[in-house]
Amino acid sequence: MPAFHFEVLQQKGRARRGRYHTPHGSFETPCFAPVGTRAAMKGITPEQLRGTGSELILANAYHLFLRPGHARIKRCGGLHRFMAWDGPILTDSGGYQIFSLSHLSRVDDQGVSFQSIIDGSEQRLTPELALEVQRDLGPDIAMVLDECPPGDADPDRVQQAHQRTLEWARQAREIHRRWGDSERGQALFGIVQGGPNPELRISAAQELRELDFDGYAIGGLSVGETKAQMEIALDAAVDELPGNKIRYLMGVGTPEDFRRAISAGVDLFDCVTATRHGRNNQAFTRAGTLKLRNQQYAEDLRPLDAGCACYTCQQFSRAYLRHLAVSGEMLAGILLSLHNLHYFQDLMREIRADIEGG
Amino acid sequence: MPAFHFEVLQQKGRARRGRYHTPHGSFETPCFAPVGTRAAMKGITPEQLRGTGSELILANAYHLFLRPGHARIKRCGGLHRFMAWDGPILTDSGGYQIFSLSHLSRVDDQGVSFQSIIDGSEQRLTPELALEVQRDLGPDIAMVLDECPPGDADPDRVQQAHQRTLEWARQAREIHRRWGDSERGQALFGIVQGGPNPELRISAAQELRELDFDGYAIGGLSVGETKAQMEIALDAAVDELPGNKIRYLMGVGTPEDFRRAISAGVDLFDCVTATRHGRNNQAFTRAGTLKLRNQQYAEDLRPLDAGCACYTCQQFSRAYLRHLAVSGEMLAGILLSLHNLHYFQDLMREIRADIEGG
Repeated sequence: MPAFHFEVLQQKGRARRGRYHTPHGSFETPCFAPVGTRAAMKGITPEQLRGTGSELILANAYHLFLRPGHARIKRCGGLHRFMAWDGPILTDSGGYQIFSLSHLSRVDDQGVSFQSIIDGSEQRLTPELALEVQRDLGPDIAMVLDECPPGDADPDRVQQAHQRTLEWARQAREIHRRWGDSERGQALFGIVQGGPNPELRISAAQELRELDFDGYAIGGLSVGETKAQMEIALDAAVDELPGNKIRYLMGVGTPEDFRRAISAGVDLFDCVTATRHGRNNQAFTRAGTLKLRNQQYAEDLRPLDAGCACYTCQQFSRAYLRHLAVSGEMLAGILLSLHNLHYFQDLMREIRADIEGG
Repeated sequence: MPAFHFEVLQQKGRARRGRYHTPHGSFETPCFAPVGTRAAMKGITPEQLRGTGSELILANAYHLFLRPGHARIKRCGGLHRFMAWDGPILTDSGGYQIFSLSHLSRVDDQGVSFQSIIDGSEQRLTPELALEVQRDLGPDIAMVLDECPPGDADPDRVQQAHQRTLEWARQAREIHRRWGDSERGQALFGIVQGGPNPELRISAAQELRELDFDGYAIGGLSVGETKAQMEIALDAAVDELPGNKIRYLMGVGTPEDFRRAISAGVDLFDCVTATRHGRNNQAFTRAGTLKLRNQQYAEDLRPLDAGCACYTCQQFSRAYLRHLAVSGEMLAGILLSLHNLHYFQDLMREIRADIEGG
C-alpha cells in the first residue's frame, strides 16, 4: 500500500464519502481544508485548529518560496515541524498567486517570471522549481505549477494557458516520478484548467488522467464566472476524471458551493472564507450570516449559533462578540474564525453523514 | 469568614507568601495579574490564559464605562459571564486612565470631568459613580477613584491630589459600606498616592489604614521617577499599611521590578508588559529579552527559553516565531504573549517557592 491513497467508502449519486491516507494520517472526505498561507492560520494556534475538527490544512508555496524560503524551511525540519502541524498538509504550487498577486508576470513556455510582492525582486518559477520548492517544504500533497488566466481572459489566452498547463503537468509528472517523490510519501496532484469552456475542461481532464496523478484538482473556478457556467465546467471535468482518485475544487468557497460541488462529485475544498470572514466580524450560522458589528446584537445573549458546539458558542454571547468587534479587539477575529472553521467542519460532517445515510 | 480575605501563609524578611480568597476562587501571592483592559486579553482566549497559570485578571472600569457601558455589562450578566472568566477579577477605577488618556480632564473636589477617548463626548466620574460602575461590572475587587497627577507635577499639585484622593477614599469607603457591597462579595481597595514624596505616602497610608479597606494599592509609581525614588516611596507606604491586608503595586512592571517590590512587602502586581511586549515581537527569557525580528533567529531551532514549559516553547522554534514576526502574522503576537504571560507566572511561582523555602 503506498503511503497515500484514496478510498471511496460510499457513493450516493455522484457524491462520494471517502478517506485519503497520507504519511501524516488520513482525512475524511468530503473535506474542508483551512488555509494557512504563510505556514500559519491567521490568529489561530495548531491546537485551536485541531479543536475545530480540521484534519488537512493548506499552505502556499508561492508565499513560502518568497519568505522565508523553501531551503530555510527545509533546514528547519520541513513544514510540519516548522509550523507544528502533525496532520496532513497540502501546498498550492503558487501558480494562482503569481497570476493574481504579482504585477508584471511574464509567462513563457518554460515558466513564469514575476516580481515578488514582498520586495519587488525579480523571480522565476518553472514546473521543476515548483516541485523543488515543494520537495523542500515537504507537504503530504504537492501541486503542479499551472497557468491561471484571469476570469475575463479572451478565448485565445485561455486556450494557450490550457496547453501550457498540460505541458507543465507532463513535465512535472515526469520529474516527480524520476525523483521518486511518490515513493518518499509526497503525492502529486494535477490541475484541470480551462476557464468556463467545457471542451477545454474535458480535454484537460482526459490528458491529465493519462498522466495518472495521485489526485486531481479543478482550478480556475469561482473567479467571476456565473454559477451556471461553474456547474457546467465542473461537471465536464469531473466526468472525465478517474473514479478512484480524489477530486479537489480549489479555492471554493461558501457552504452553498460545497453542497453543489459535492453533489457533482468533488471530495476536497480549501478556502480562506471561514477565517477572512471571521476577521471581518462575520459569522456563518445555520440561520445565515451575522454581521457582528450591528447594533442589534448589543445585548443579544444568545450564542452565534445555538446548534454549534464550538468554543466560541459554548463560552460567549453575541453581545460580547459585538463588544469585541466594535472595540477592535483581536479576540473578535479569533473567536469568529474559530466558530466559522468549526461551522464549516460541522457542515462537512453533516454532509458525510448524509452520504453514509444513503 | 467573609467571601474575600487574605491569608499570610509565610513571611521571609518583608516578603510574604499568601493567598487571597474571593467568591470566584483564590489566588496565590505574590501574584501577577494580566490586564484585559476592555474585558478581553489581547489575542488570548480565557482558556489559553488559564493555561499560562494566571489566576486573577484585571479589567478597566474607565474603558468599560465608555464602551459598552457598565449598565449593559450588568444586563449581560456581569463581567465574569460577559468575558467568560470564572476566576477572580479586579477592576481599576479609571482614575489613572482619565488623567493619562483623556484630554482636558478637569478635576474638582467632587469628581473629574473629561472627554471620552472614543467619541470626544463629555463625561464625568465621581467617587460614587466609580463605585456604581464597578458594582454593575461585578468584579471581585473594586478600586476607589483616585487622582493621579503626572510624574513631573509640582509639589502643590501633588499635595492637592493627595488630599483629594484621601477625601474620595473616605467617601467611597462610606458608600461601599452603606451599600453593603463587602457583604455581597466585592472587596474595595484603597489607593496610596503621594508621588515620590515619602511624607505624603506615609500620611496617605496612615489615613487609608484608618478607613480599614479590604486591601491596599500603591499607585502613581513607575511613572517616570528614579528606581531609588520608587523604592523610598514604596518602603514608606508599605511600612504604614496593616500586615494582615494584601498590598498591590499598580501598573508595575518588569521581572526586576517584581523581585524588588516583593522584597519590600508587595503581594500583587498588574502590568500590560507581558502582552504588549509580545505583540511587539519581544520575548522575556531567563537569558534576557529576545527581539524576534532579528536576523540572528532566522534559523535558530531552539525554543524561546529552554527552561519554559509553555505551549509556545513546547511547539515552536525561534526561527518559526521570527518568520511569523517578519511576515506580520497575528500568530506572532499571540504566541509571544502566551510565552511572556507564562514566563511571568513561572517567575511568580519561583518567587513563591523561594519564600516558602525560607
